[in-house]
This record gives sequence, structure tokens and C-alpha cells, in this order.
Amino acid sequence: MTTVSAAPWLDVPADHPFGVATLPYGVFSTAADPVARVGVAIGELILDLAPVVRLLAPRLAPAVAGPSLDALLAAGPRTWAEVRAAVTTWLTDPSFSDQLGAHLVPARDAVLHLPFTVADYVDFYASEQHATNLGRMFRPGQDPLTPNWKHLPIGYHGRAGTVVGSGTGVVRPSGQRREPDGGITFGPSRRLDIEAELGFVVGAPSRLGRPVELTRFAEHVFGVCLVNDWSARDIQAWEYVPLGPFLGKSFATSVSPWVVPLAALDAARVAPPERTVPLLPYLDDSRTPPWGLDVRLEVRLNGHVVSRPVFDGMYWTGAQMLAHLTANGASLRTGDLYASGTISGARPDQRGSLIELSWGGAEPLRLADGTTRTFLEDGDEVVISAVAPGAGGTVIGLGEVRGRILPAGRD
Amino acid sequence: MTTVSAAPWLDVPADHPFGVATLPYGVFSTAADPVARVGVAIGELILDLAPVVRLLAPRLAPAVAGPSLDALLAAGPRTWAEVRAAVTTWLTDPSFSDQLGAHLVPARDAVLHLPFTVADYVDFYASEQHATNLGRMFRPGQDPLTPNWKHLPIGYHGRAGTVVGSGTGVVRPSGQRREPDGGITFGPSRRLDIEAELGFVVGAPSRLGRPVELTRFAEHVFGVCLVNDWSARDIQAWEYVPLGPFLGKSFATSVSPWVVPLAALDAARVAPPERTVPLLPYLDDSRTPPWGLDVRLEVRLNGHVVSRPVFDGMYWTGAQMLAHLTANGASLRTGDLYASGTISGARPDQRGSLIELSWGGAEPLRLADGTTRTFLEDGDEVVISAVAPGAGGTVIGLGEVRGRILPAGRD
Repeated sequence: MTTVSAAPWLDVPADHPFGVATLPYGVFSTAADPVARVGVAIGELILDLAPVVRLLAPRLAPAVAGPSLDALLAAGPRTWAEVRAAVTTWLTDPSFSDQLGAHLVPARDAVLHLPFTVADYVDFYASEQHATNLGRMFRPGQDPLTPNWKHLPIGYHGRAGTVVGSGTGVVRPSGQRREPDGGITFGPSRRLDIEAELGFVVGAPSRLGRPVELTRFAEHVFGVCLVNDWSARDIQAWEYVPLGPFLGKSFATSVSPWVVPLAALDAARVAPPERTVPLLPYLDDSRTPPWGLDVRLEVRLNGHVVSRPVFDGMYWTGAQMLAHLTANGASLRTGDLYASGTISGARPDQRGSLIELSWGGAEPLRLADGTTRTFLEDGDEVVISAVAPGAGGTVIGLGEVRGRILPAGRD
Repeated sequence: MTTVSAAPWLDVPADHPFGVATLPYGVFSTAADPVARVGVAIGELILDLAPVVRLLAPRLAPAVAGPSLDALLAAGPRTWAEVRAAVTTWLTDPSFSDQLGAHLVPARDAVLHLPFTVADYVDFYASEQHATNLGRMFRPGQDPLTPNWKHLPIGYHGRAGTVVGSGTGVVRPSGQRREPDGGITFGPSRRLDIEAELGFVVGAPSRLGRPVELTRFAEHVFGVCLVNDWSARDIQAWEYVPLGPFLGKSFATSVSPWVVPLAALDAARVAPPERTVPLLPYLDDSRTPPWGLDVRLEVRLNGHVVSRPVFDGMYWTGAQMLAHLTANGASLRTGDLYASGTISGARPDQRGSLIELSWGGAEPLRLADGTTRTFLEDGDEVVISAVAPGAGGTVIGLGEVRGRILPAGRD
């Protein structure tokens, strides 16, 4: 990939996270034009894509028409490359400035929407540190990693219908929990938590009965977003044996508005950690270019940084998750979203959930404003953001996913 | 509800499972008219609903136009009642025979399709006998029911994208399993199984953050279908701790083509079993008309009856499942499907899965053709059908869900 400098006529600094090396896709509307439509973020602006493509590359117009990224996702990797190449040219060649000018909207004037229709939502559990930490807390006295953990990327299906856009208020869920005295009660969760995750957005579908091989990852996955998989730990702890998390997770999952194409992450690819158990052939990525990713997250609670999780230590890659997800012949649909599971690094300040950061509530976090937290309080706002290295010293921004806790029973 | 005799001019016997007391909805096409469209089954015929409604009740036409039941489901309970009342009148009043005649298609000439777009798919675990049997086999030496089982209807999300219509071939899935010697291998499942279940089809959506109370069941759930939740027990046993079933289930879930409206099941409502643990208020159905259902299933393997599960002994009702599913504020979408989990009765010949019928493979089933089975072999065909009592001695048919096992790697 060649390094491109940020569009000089747009005055976007070369190290802007939404420079021309990023070009993420999203869906936006404005007060002046309230129709939801596809946009590309560039600096502090959004390029209104449909009219520009109609004008300059009409053959590609159907992929970016409509109120979501669905058509673009479904169009497949060849179209993804063509649209990205065209947008890159338009934004870097000053001769297009007149044609683009009318279709650049200040990002501050835009409302951002859930960018695609979520088909199935799957959540993995791919951080060894996170799984180890949770195993210690949920199953004390046992080996924290279950025997299968290093043989396969453990995952489960979540609720696609409650995946919400960044900024959507999250009503504190109620549910059953077991009290310390053993009694079973129902009420608002007292252990409401976050999970900082990376999400993979499937574009091209696959046929039922046909596994998708590891090496076909980039032919099916369009790009990545940030995911906050809100979790009610008290509800989860009581319900999850034997069939897994359900209501402890299904009340809301927030995703970031900008989907960063895999093509923007070339320079962020790194080798995954050494695997300490031999991998079965369908998961063995030792002879293919690796899909570890040097993505660095930041978790802010009411404006204070509480964690800086790093994706590069994740035991399982997105390519392995996809190969596993389809190994039984399960088909993919456009809009399938699968998330990595909580991203926790080796250091305590790299943990991607409050249950780990506060060690189950035993070690409250002290925020810079002097308050302390174990789990989330009503009114708390969580913002997860991320960057990755781009080619030639550029920065690839993943934007942010934001959400505020509303009191139980309000919406 | 008044008893209606089957349409005399259609020559449908009063005890036909698709008599005028049933009137299930489905989607069909024919060689002469290959467009998928909404139909109502009546005896051995299908009423092509859209043209009839356009002619006789044009106000209701939008609900039954289109290639699926989606619009009807979304239209809500008032429209459901109006359409059902209208169709009942048309089929029982001979004065409509001329107008209907041109729109009645022999069922044998029709291809039946997946009747609605599945939004989220949830599978419950509501049979005490099934949960007890599986607990004994999967967690020997422990209490077969987990401590939460009688406090809440345990459920988990499944893969909506691999819910398939009756008759779709089911490719034997491959996956990881632990061999008896402890080695981990990958290959076609050796313990491929069925699960005979009842599915509940959500019509009217609900708002995020707003639980749906037990008493609102019939305002949101349109009707029921039959579900075969195919299960690869070897894959499931290795993967399911700690986050629940995933690839052991996600390769295919078959649903019956006819959705029977709740209104047809009035006479089948029975009291659920006595609850031996006090229920929290949101699940307490002791002061509302019960939603236990006297639905009697039959499971045939290659034409031989292997089980006759009964739904009336299910510990949790569909109304309780819905109240639980939404207790945390999770919203419902039109097309959400939730299934009961395997229906197993107290008697050995009422068990709804092969793992129970063959007791984990230790006690092979002998079929009437002299062959034996523990789990499914390639080429095996499973048909699950069901009936329920209707008003005035009529029979309510749920039709059947059918599927045949294809060899691994074929599709």
C-alpha cells in the first residue's frame, strides 16, 4: 500500500485519525437534510458519498445509495476496493475539490446512525487475560481457563435486535440475582459493567454447508468497529450455567458509528501471540499472513481514562474466529457482526471491563475527579475509542463508541 | 369461541387437522405461479390469501401482500383477529364459494417456504425431564438440574441466519470433539441429534427498555410452529463450557411451514405443572389464565415413530419465556422466534431427542424396519408433527417439520 498524504486542500493534518489513510464508512443525517445516508469521514468533515459517486463513478452508485451500509457490505471485496480507491483519489487530487466541495458536511453538524443492519451477532472470548481473570472470579478454585479455551475460540450468539448505535442511552437492566445469603431476588442490576471489544463486520455472505477458510477472511469481512458489550454481572452470574450468558448481556450492545475497512489496517497487522497448544488445521494461521492487530483502545468513564486495552495480545484473531464460526457449515449473512470479547492486556491498566479493573468490586477504582467506582452508576458515561498505526506514520482512527447509563425503568 | 364446522362446500372433514378451526398461515408457490405468497391451509387445499383479501376486505390487503408473513406479523393483534375472522367467514359461508374457488390451490401442487424473516432466535430449556436427562449425561455425579433451573426459564440465543424451512437438507456438520482418549480431533459429527420443540413467533414488536408482562403474551406472539433444533452432541459437549452451545447447534434449525395462530389454541390451554419453587412476580402465572398447551408431538425417523413428546408437562410456558426474555428491557422485533427447548415427557417414549431415547448411545433404538439407531445416519429423514385439541372436538394440526441428513461436505 502506498502512503498518501492527507488531502492538502482539506487541511487535514497527516496524523489525523480520520486522514486519507483511514476513510471509514458510516451513516449520517443533518438538520438540513434529515435523510440517513452513507458518508466517509475525512478529518472533521463527512463526505456525502452517494451524490459524489453518482457523479464521478456512476457504476458504483448502487453500492452507496440507500440509508445504510448494507448494499456496500453486500457488494463484496472487489467493489470495496474500487470505492476506496476512488474516494482516495478524489480526496487527494485537488482537481476534484470543486466537485466534492458541495458534498462535504462538518462532522459536528451530523447525527450518526447505526451504520448497518445487524444480521446475527456473535461474541467471542478471545483474550487469554480476560478469560483468566473472569475464570478466577466466576469459578474460584478451578483452573481459570476451561480445557477447551486454547483449542478453539469460544463464542456464543448474542441478541442482534438490541445492538444500538453509539450515544443511545442504556437503561439499567433488571433481573434475577442470587444474594449473598442465597436468596433469589429481582431488581435493577447492581453490577453493571462494560466490555471493550473490537467488532468484525461481515460483508459478503457464504453458503450454508460451506465453511469459510482462514485465508478467506478479507473476502468476507468488510471492516471493524468498536463494541461496548454492556454486561450485568449479577444477572449473568446467576443465569449462565449451563447454557451461557443471556439476559446479562441482551439488554444493549453499543457499536461505534464508523466502520474502518480492513484495507486501512494493513500496517497494523502483527503476529498473534505464540500459541501454546497445537492448533487444528482449520485454525492454524502459522503459514498465512497474520491477522493479529495492533489496535490500541482507551476507555474513559465520565471523561477519565480508566483503561488502555491493547488488541495485539489477543490469543485468537478475527480470521480464526471467522473460520471457527463457519467450521460447522453455518452460513454468513451480510451484516453479521462478531466481536472479539473483552480486550484485556497483561497489565492491570489494560483490562477492558470494570469487573477486572475493580477485581469483582473488591478494589474500587479511583477516578481523577476523586470519586470511586466498582460498577457503573446511573448517569455514568463510557466512551471507548481506538487508534492503530497506518502506513508511513499515519494514524488510523476507529472513532469511538459512547453510552450513558439511564436509571432502571426509564427510557 | 364458537365451534365452526369445516367448510361443507370444500368437503373438509370436521376432524381434519387443517379444518376451519386451525387456519394456519404459510408461504407457498406453485409451478404455475412461482411467486412466493401468503396462504392459509384448509384441508388439502391452500387459499391464496392476497387476491381474496384484495377483493373481499381491501382494508386488510397490505397485511397479506408480499412474499412472507412479515407484514401480517407486524400488523398486530387486532389485524390478526380481523383476518382470521374474515377467512373463517369466507370458508364457512357457501355464498363465498365462487369468489374463493379460483384462489384455492391443491396443497400437493405447492412448494412451501420459510414463512417469515427470522429476526432473533432464542432457544429455551423448559422441559424438566429433558433438562434432568441431559444434566445426568453431561454432568454425571452432580445435581442434574442447575440451582437456577426452577427459578427462571433458562435460554440462550441461537443463530437466526441458519433457521431453514422444512425439507431443507441438513449437511452433517464437522467440528472439534474430545475423543475418549482425551485427544482433540476435527471431523464430521458422530452424534448428530434432533430436538423436537415448539416455536413461538413474535409479531408485534416492543420498545427497548420496556419489559413485556406475562399477561401481554398474546398481544405480541402471533402463533406457534414446530422446530427441529438439530444438535451435534459431540461438538456441543466439548465447546459449551462456559458460554453455552454454539457450533453444536448453529449449523441448522428447521421450522415447520405453517404458523398456527394462538387463537386456534384456545381449547388446548391447560394448567402448567405445579411449580415446586416459588416464582418471582414477573413469572408468577398463578393468577392469570394458564398458557400450558396440550400439544402432542410425534417424531418419525425414516417413517417409524420413535417418540411421542407431550407439551402439556413443560415446566415453563411460552408466556413465561416471553416475560423472562424481556425482563431486562430487551426489545422484541417482528419475526423473533423463540423455541421451547426439547419437549420430553415423563415416559421414556416421550423423549424429544435421540440422546435421551438412546441414553447417550448406550441403549440403541430398534426401528420397525429392524435397523437400530443411536444418533442420525446419513440419509436419515426426521419428521416431527403435532396436533392439539380444538373447540367442539375439532383437531388443530401444527403440520410437520421435515429434514434429511446429507453427508458431511455435501450441499
